[in-house]
Amino acid sequence: MTHKIAILGASGYTGAELVRLIAEHPNMEITALAAERKAGQTMAEVFPHLRHLDFPRLCKIEQIDFGQIDLCFCALPHKTSQEVIRDLPSDLKIVDLSADFRLADPDEYEKWYGNPHAALTHQDEAVYGLTEFYREDIRAARLVAGTGCNAATGQYVLRPLIPAGVIDLDDIILDLKCAVSGAGRALKENLLHAELSEGTNAYAVGGTHRHLGEFDQEFSKLAGRAVHIQFTPHLIPANRGILATSYVKGDPQSVYETLCAAYADEPFIHMLPFGETPSTHHVRGSNFCHIGVVADRIERRAIVIAALDNLTKGSSGQALQNANLMLGEPETTGLMMAPLFP
Amino acid sequence: MTHKIAILGASGYTGAELVRLIAEHPNMEITALAAERKAGQTMAEVFPHLRHLDFPRLCKIEQIDFGQIDLCFCALPHKTSQEVIRDLPSDLKIVDLSADFRLADPDEYEKWYGNPHAALTHQDEAVYGLTEFYREDIRAARLVAGTGCNAATGQYVLRPLIPAGVIDLDDIILDLKCAVSGAGRALKENLLHAELSEGTNAYAVGGTHRHLGEFDQEFSKLAGRAVHIQFTPHLIPANRGILATSYVKGDPQSVYETLCAAYADEPFIHMLPFGETPSTHHVRGSNFCHIGVVADRIERRAIVIAALDNLTKGSSGQALQNANLMLGEPETTGLMMAPLFP
Amino acid sequence: MTHKIAILGASGYTGAELVRLIAEHPNMEITALAAERKAGQTMAEVFPHLRHLDFPRLCKIEQIDFGQIDLCFCALPHKTSQEVIRDLPSDLKIVDLSADFRLADPDEYEKWYGNPHAALTHQDEAVYGLTEFYREDIRAARLVAGTGCNAATGQYVLRPLIPAGVIDLDDIILDLKCAVSGAGRALKENLLHAELSEGTNAYAVGGTHRHLGEFDQEFSKLAGRAVHIQFTPHLIPANRGILATSYVKGDPQSVYETLCAAYADEPFIHMLPFGETPSTHHVRGSNFCHIGVVADRIERRAIVIAALDNLTKGSSGQALQNANLMLGEPETTGLMMAPLFP
Amino acid sequence: MTHKIAILGASGYTGAELVRLIAEHPNMEITALAAERKAGQTMAEVFPHLRHLDFPRLCKIEQIDFGQIDLCFCALPHKTSQEVIRDLPSDLKIVDLSADFRLADPDEYEKWYGNPHAALTHQDEAVYGLTEFYREDIRAARLVAGTGCNAATGQYVLRPLIPAGVIDLDDIILDLKCAVSGAGRALKENLLHAELSEGTNAYAVGGTHRHLGEFDQEFSKLAGRAVHIQFTPHLIPANRGILATSYVKGDPQSVYETLCAAYADEPFIHMLPFGETPSTHHVRGSNFCHIGVVADRIERRAIVIAALDNLTKGSSGQALQNANLMLGEPETTGLMMAPLFP
Repeated sequence: MTHKIAILGASGYTGAELVRLIAEHPNMEITALAAERKAGQTMAEVFPHLRHLDFPRLCKIEQIDFGQIDLCFCALPHKTSQEVIRDLPSDLKIVDLSADFRLADPDEYEKWYGNPHAALTHQDEAVYGLTEFYREDIRAARLVAGTGCNAATGQYVLRPLIPAGVIDLDDIILDLKCAVSGAGRALKENLLHAELSEGTNAYAVGGTHRHLGEFDQEFSKLAGRAVHIQFTPHLIPANRGILATSYVKGDPQSVYETLCAAYADEPFIHMLPFGETPSTHHVRGSNFCHIGVVADRIERRAIVIAALDNLTKGSSGQALQNANLMLGEPETTGLMMAPLFP
Repeated sequence: MTHKIAILGASGYTGAELVRLIAEHPNMEITALAAERKAGQTMAEVFPHLRHLDFPRLCKIEQIDFGQIDLCFCALPHKTSQEVIRDLPSDLKIVDLSADFRLADPDEYEKWYGNPHAALTHQDEAVYGLTEFYREDIRAARLVAGTGCNAATGQYVLRPLIPAGVIDLDDIILDLKCAVSGAGRALKENLLHAELSEGTNAYAVGGTHRHLGEFDQEFSKLAGRAVHIQFTPHLIPANRGILATSYVKGDPQSVYETLCAAYADEPFIHMLPFGETPSTHHVRGSNFCHIGVVADRIERRAIVIAALDNLTKGSSGQALQNANLMLGEPETTGLMMAPLFP
Repeated sequence: MTHKIAILGASGYTGAELVRLIAEHPNMEITALAAERKAGQTMAEVFPHLRHLDFPRLCKIEQIDFGQIDLCFCALPHKTSQEVIRDLPSDLKIVDLSADFRLADPDEYEKWYGNPHAALTHQDEAVYGLTEFYREDIRAARLVAGTGCNAATGQYVLRPLIPAGVIDLDDIILDLKCAVSGAGRALKENLLHAELSEGTNAYAVGGTHRHLGEFDQEFSKLAGRAVHIQFTPHLIPANRGILATSYVKGDPQSVYETLCAAYADEPFIHMLPFGETPSTHHVRGSNFCHIGVVADRIERRAIVIAALDNLTKGSSGQALQNANLMLGEPETTGLMMAPLFP
Repeated sequence: MTHKIAILGASGYTGAELVRLIAEHPNMEITALAAERKAGQTMAEVFPHLRHLDFPRLCKIEQIDFGQIDLCFCALPHKTSQEVIRDLPSDLKIVDLSADFRLADPDEYEKWYGNPHAALTHQDEAVYGLTEFYREDIRAARLVAGTGCNAATGQYVLRPLIPAGVIDLDDIILDLKCAVSGAGRALKENLLHAELSEGTNAYAVGGTHRHLGEFDQEFSKLAGRAVHIQFTPHLIPANRGILATSYVKGDPQSVYETLCAAYADEPFIHMLPFGETPSTHHVRGSNFCHIGVVADRIERRAIVIAALDNLTKGSSGQALQNANLMLGEPETTGLMMAPLFP
């Protein structure tokens, strides 16, 4: 059986990545592609790398007959997404890639995003889309909220450690190195090649990055009390990839064993041998996440490092993984391709 | 039925690319991986991006039981390849990715490569591996000689034009822009990131690049008389991709129509609308080749530009395409994945 | 004696490059910096790499007291520049970096730029700023029109050859590889890091690039008859540098000797030994141009390749070289810094 | 008066950077350039970007008449350097760029570098070359040991804080992002463009990087008791630049004021406004170091970030700054050039 798929926001990077992945999926068919400002164009005009594929032209959302759609991916900008989803059929399965349904508490949403939420009922209904930790909820969900790409990476490093009692919960540092596609296809001066290549800088330093809302929500829930981490992202001159370096206090061997146990049966999360560390070069274009643990020379301090591709495992790959669950497909279908190296 | 595959030279870039592709092939199974200097290591140690795949350890060639192998890819260095292939079972299907069997004339081989050929019988037997133009020969072949990656790109631009009488055969210029993985995983100063990134330069200028041997052989055969082109490759700071800009004299519309006719039914060669030109960004990691034709402001001059991924369509993808034919599989199996962008 | 300098358009890349160079000039002082949209900001806010320098805040053009200025650099957008310069004091020395005064013929200007020229008197007065070939005119000029960066590179390759009778004037091909800063600080999708890095493509193919207006004007004047070349620029993933590969017909040794003779006493133009070719890596951040000549394997065909930094020798360095002449300073003052490598 | 300068190890990146800088120095003249394996070649052959400069050919060290040399830079590999310096004239002024004389304690040296020191007397005599903190000692020194480039960056962030009592000395984390030229011109697989570009990874994780020897020595001396920090370097796909992100515990405003006070009169160290952070893009090719301080959302936690160019301020620029002091020149001579951006 072939599932009919719609993608809203098909002219952005996460939209294109969804298309790349779904084109290889044996049981999905792209039935509608929407992109407001580029409606009427072909996908090949907007993304020439998809020229070999045969799709309907980009349209406006209101042109889609959602009665024919089995599942809809929303790759729309934050704030737009909640307004669009509010008006979609209430029985339509949806995977949202925006930030709009990640935070369950309306006050937290408003604190981090600056506006009151416009679709409170849906916010209540949404399941947080970190597949490995919400698998059963996602399987039963109608609306899944894809995680932030940084938030996903940091949680793969830290989630198993928090309820395990193996690290100090008041002293967690997460230093991220993020490739530029995470910022989307936005026309901003600092995203120009001439400004970005050949150098690096931190941004949103000091606890202002919105993905902290996700960390706070999830880690506090796991710990049963407030947990606040330090999180500093850095922009690196690469198109894909996030490397998360986490500094935690606890026995490194216990940290390692906790992570190994948590991920033993996971198809996409791979623990490296103790003492080895991953590279974003080795996950590019794939749905895999590599994690390594190293003991510092100072006792009871561990460094945990994770690498994944922000557009795949951090966003569109995760979305497809969730859609597989929601549609009763094997979770890994269409997602086992090897990374592209070099 | 699953074909059992061996790869000799699995620790280089074309070897790794073969593994990436074959891992997705529904009817092939990698049975043996050889790499002389890294024998005994796992593939994950040599190429951590393949960590999720389960393979036999790298071995030495003599450890392989070729009686169990249905097809063998040789991704060995030039000169080594002919010596190895000479000693392999004479009924083993082989796709060679080296330069050793590309030139049919032993004198031409010696002229371009500097040493007498060590496997003349095999040289005689080998079929030139430019799939779109030798499809039936390849289907029947035992030994196929993969083309040079630059030679493939240039031929996609020029081959249909040469016998068609639409261009001046004595005035053909081919200016190539080549990514660095074409040079392999060799430890050379000019391939270091610090020497290569953020700039460009020509190399092998003036008619000294060995792929000219292939151009001369093929174009002269097509024309029925000697054809010598000018060919200047340039190294660009990118990992994958070749852009071939060809300057030819003839009616641009006829040039375009000739190419369109030649490639109308080809699954991997895509003609852009007249006047548009391709980008290597849009074929990365794929087996596609995009070709565009533009009329110059000067009458009867056309610019033809092709883009492909040197490791895929220019090398390992081509090799798999040929192997599919040799094994009776559909030619496109395992090769229709979309390019990775951005 | 210190010359007082104003820079109009200080918030773009050529403006910033002028500041970088003039900051090291012993006899120039930056008195005014104008940037319409960023007026009121400090230079450090707009270009943090100039943080260590002490300048007046960015202002609007009308705030500048031009009576105190000895020389004014205009690094404004095309079309804006002619309107601004028309209204500046008629005795003010000006080096314009825009395209507005490069073409002497108003019809040619309108043909290439699409609008009638708004300052015809100044267009008539302007001297073409290719220093090595208009040195004495520039010394005496009030208004100098900086050349296009591609136009400069192509002319360094070809100018001496055209009147020398050593090449076929009807068969000249110029294939350029251009770094991205040549496109300025404009917010365009194709200039984003994610779209540009790791690949290459041609643009303005077929004789549509505006710098052809300069080639036509200059080469025809030199030849005493119409000369039209083929010119194809390509965008490469680097921030600075142009590599011009020219294919000409003539005796390579004569071509080489003609160029050597022309540039024997030039401080910034360096001929490589015959048979060697230059790299943009080796001129980055400098005012030097390296040129190499190679004989093709086909008789009477030569390949001439030049490399320079588009922001320095191709634009702001050239502008300063011209300003030195106009102000009676030694031509090389402030311009002999070595390239930055790696 | 012109100082006669020799550079030993002129074929590496720090050697080339010294030449680039000294070529602009008004009172220094390069009299001898040594490079063992490339002796006999011209500097233009080894580094074509220095083609415009006129130097003696590369020679072997024993060919240099040190009686004529006023100051000698040693840019030799670790271990080689101590053996060479041991045999140089005992009154020759030397700035060593290797690691050989950075650690004062022979046991610490052996612990971090794995071999007993071969020039103990010189080790005793050497002054640690972090100019801003050892200025008077350097002025009087005969032998100055240039610091590690990572060690310099980390110390600019942390040194003033350690004796000031404003941070917790037992909980300091230093997360570095390092460009590739810091690894030198070595032919290693992980330094190839194809392996390094478009991604990032940590290395020497857990307290094994040799620059920790310098941190331990200096910070413990400043604190009057043992201070051990956590230090994790990451390789980023850029040629120049180090970004040091430091996580410290203390009042952010006090941290900021301490750093501002320490660097108020320093010509090369620039404090950004409180809350702003630096970028390696903005120091490329210069001798400047930019430092920013941000308060984390968690009380009494500060993030301090510094950016410098590893080849200039981190190595050869520092060396020239020290040489200026040793020769009685103004410290900033030849070092005030602006960064290259973009």
